[in-house]
Amino acid sequence: MKQRPLILVTNDDGITAPGIRQLIAVMNTIGDVVVVAPDSPQSGMGHAITINSTLYLTKIKVDDGPQQEYQCSGTPADCVKLAINELMDRKPDLCVSGINHGSNASINVIYSGTMSAAIEAGIEGVPAIGFSLLDYRWEANFSILTPFIEKITRKALEHKMPHDVVLNVNFPRCEAHEIKGIKVARQAKAHWVEKFDKRRSPMGKDYYWLTGEFINEDKGEDTDEAALTENYVSIVPTQFDLTAHHAIQQLNTWGLNE
Amino acid sequence: MKQRPLILVTNDDGITAPGIRQLIAVMNTIGDVVVVAPDSPQSGMGHAITINSTLYLTKIKVDDGPQQEYQCSGTPADCVKLAINELMDRKPDLCVSGINHGSNASINVIYSGTMSAAIEAGIEGVPAIGFSLLDYRWEANFSILTPFIEKITRKALEHKMPHDVVLNVNFPRCEAHEIKGIKVARQAKAHWVEKFDKRRSPMGKDYYWLTGEFINEDKGEDTDEAALTENYVSIVPTQFDLTAHHAIQQLNTWGLNE
Repeated sequence: MKQRPLILVTNDDGITAPGIRQLIAVMNTIGDVVVVAPDSPQSGMGHAITINSTLYLTKIKVDDGPQQEYQCSGTPADCVKLAINELMDRKPDLCVSGINHGSNASINVIYSGTMSAAIEAGIEGVPAIGFSLLDYRWEANFSILTPFIEKITRKALEHKMPHDVVLNVNFPRCEAHEIKGIKVARQAKAHWVEKFDKRRSPMGKDYYWLTGEFINEDKGEDTDEAALTENYVSIVPTQFDLTAHHAIQQLNTWGLNE
Repeated sequence: MKQRPLILVTNDDGITAPGIRQLIAVMNTIGDVVVVAPDSPQSGMGHAITINSTLYLTKIKVDDGPQQEYQCSGTPADCVKLAINELMDRKPDLCVSGINHGSNASINVIYSGTMSAAIEAGIEGVPAIGFSLLDYRWEANFSILTPFIEKITRKALEHKMPHDVVLNVNFPRCEAHEIKGIKVARQAKAHWVEKFDKRRSPMGKDYYWLTGEFINEDKGEDTDEAALTENYVSIVPTQFDLTAHHAIQQLNTWGLNE
């Protein structure tokens, strides 16, 4: 790439989250950065989009630096749609999302606003990467991730991204010297066993909080969970063709037209 | 199946929508029905879940019939989590979601609350089917779909559902006698070209409405869009392992650990 790449940065924890501030700092060393991120936390938003309400987009400046910044009243997927189709003069060369405060490995990808932003960019033909750290804390140590984010981003710009694929990158929670390297992996088959915490409001009405326990039933050594457990950075190539192609043949034996 | 199957019914258009009322009526002829559906429309919610707020679950009765009904303040995925993990005495034999007012074929599956409910059930090990009609109108004619919904549901209960797969069923918008049959298909590669409608509020602030045009660039004859265009009912087996397995090898040539 001869000129500096144009990079769209977004997230789901909101534009002031330490994770996105770190990601912006790294991207400023690689390209020209436009930030369009939610004005409030959007964790667990999945691939929600705003179709029955209005969207606001406001130019702001959270930190010093060459980046242009906008906050948006919508979801992460809304941010990407607005950025690519309304705000930016040309299609970005790359969209990066994150750094998410918390894991988006294994089944978490399904619920992830961070990854939905990356997937939305992928659908619109923009190479995209979601970055997440297995540390939910606001004060998580993102700075040690810089060399890995820079390397993965530069490799993605150098090589052609696989067609209709976005990258789901997760970082283990450990010290910098403990990170063993980068592993390309598959999404582990895992799920959450929900336990609802039932409470009663001051007005006497029952309500619930969603809580849960993460269960990884997948003992494969080629999964993202296995890589992260061993302190590797995991990269899962992630697609938005949800067709279970292998199941088509089986369904054709059901006699659906008899 | 010797006893009557236990069937969970949900949707994303809200518990009073004509689509879910029709689906409940059909399911009452097949099994014992528990309805847990959003108390307000949730279209476009994707796989959103409620993690930073509370959830309410309220027993109600919208229509006569043997079904038990509950409305929930959360998203379609929340409804399924609450139903399976908190409300129901045993795991349902089937979860059906819909009938959605509007298409969930091709890329729409990504944004769909209807399909996120079915996928959530699938993740929790419950066979699941999402039903959608290519007609956005509240007064759409759902009754002509009854024989197809009944057949697909009975076949799914008779046969073993493919492992970790849920069904995305879409109905063409046409007269009953024009429906040619049922086709198992793959998700068409299509996308929305967004056009934002920019307006100014009475307070002088700019805002946007998301609008868009659906573009199907996939000319394959084996897609859901092709089947629907020819007035077939389309069934796409849909998975929640998003790994692009074919891309792993390519990423391993990037020299990520050099």
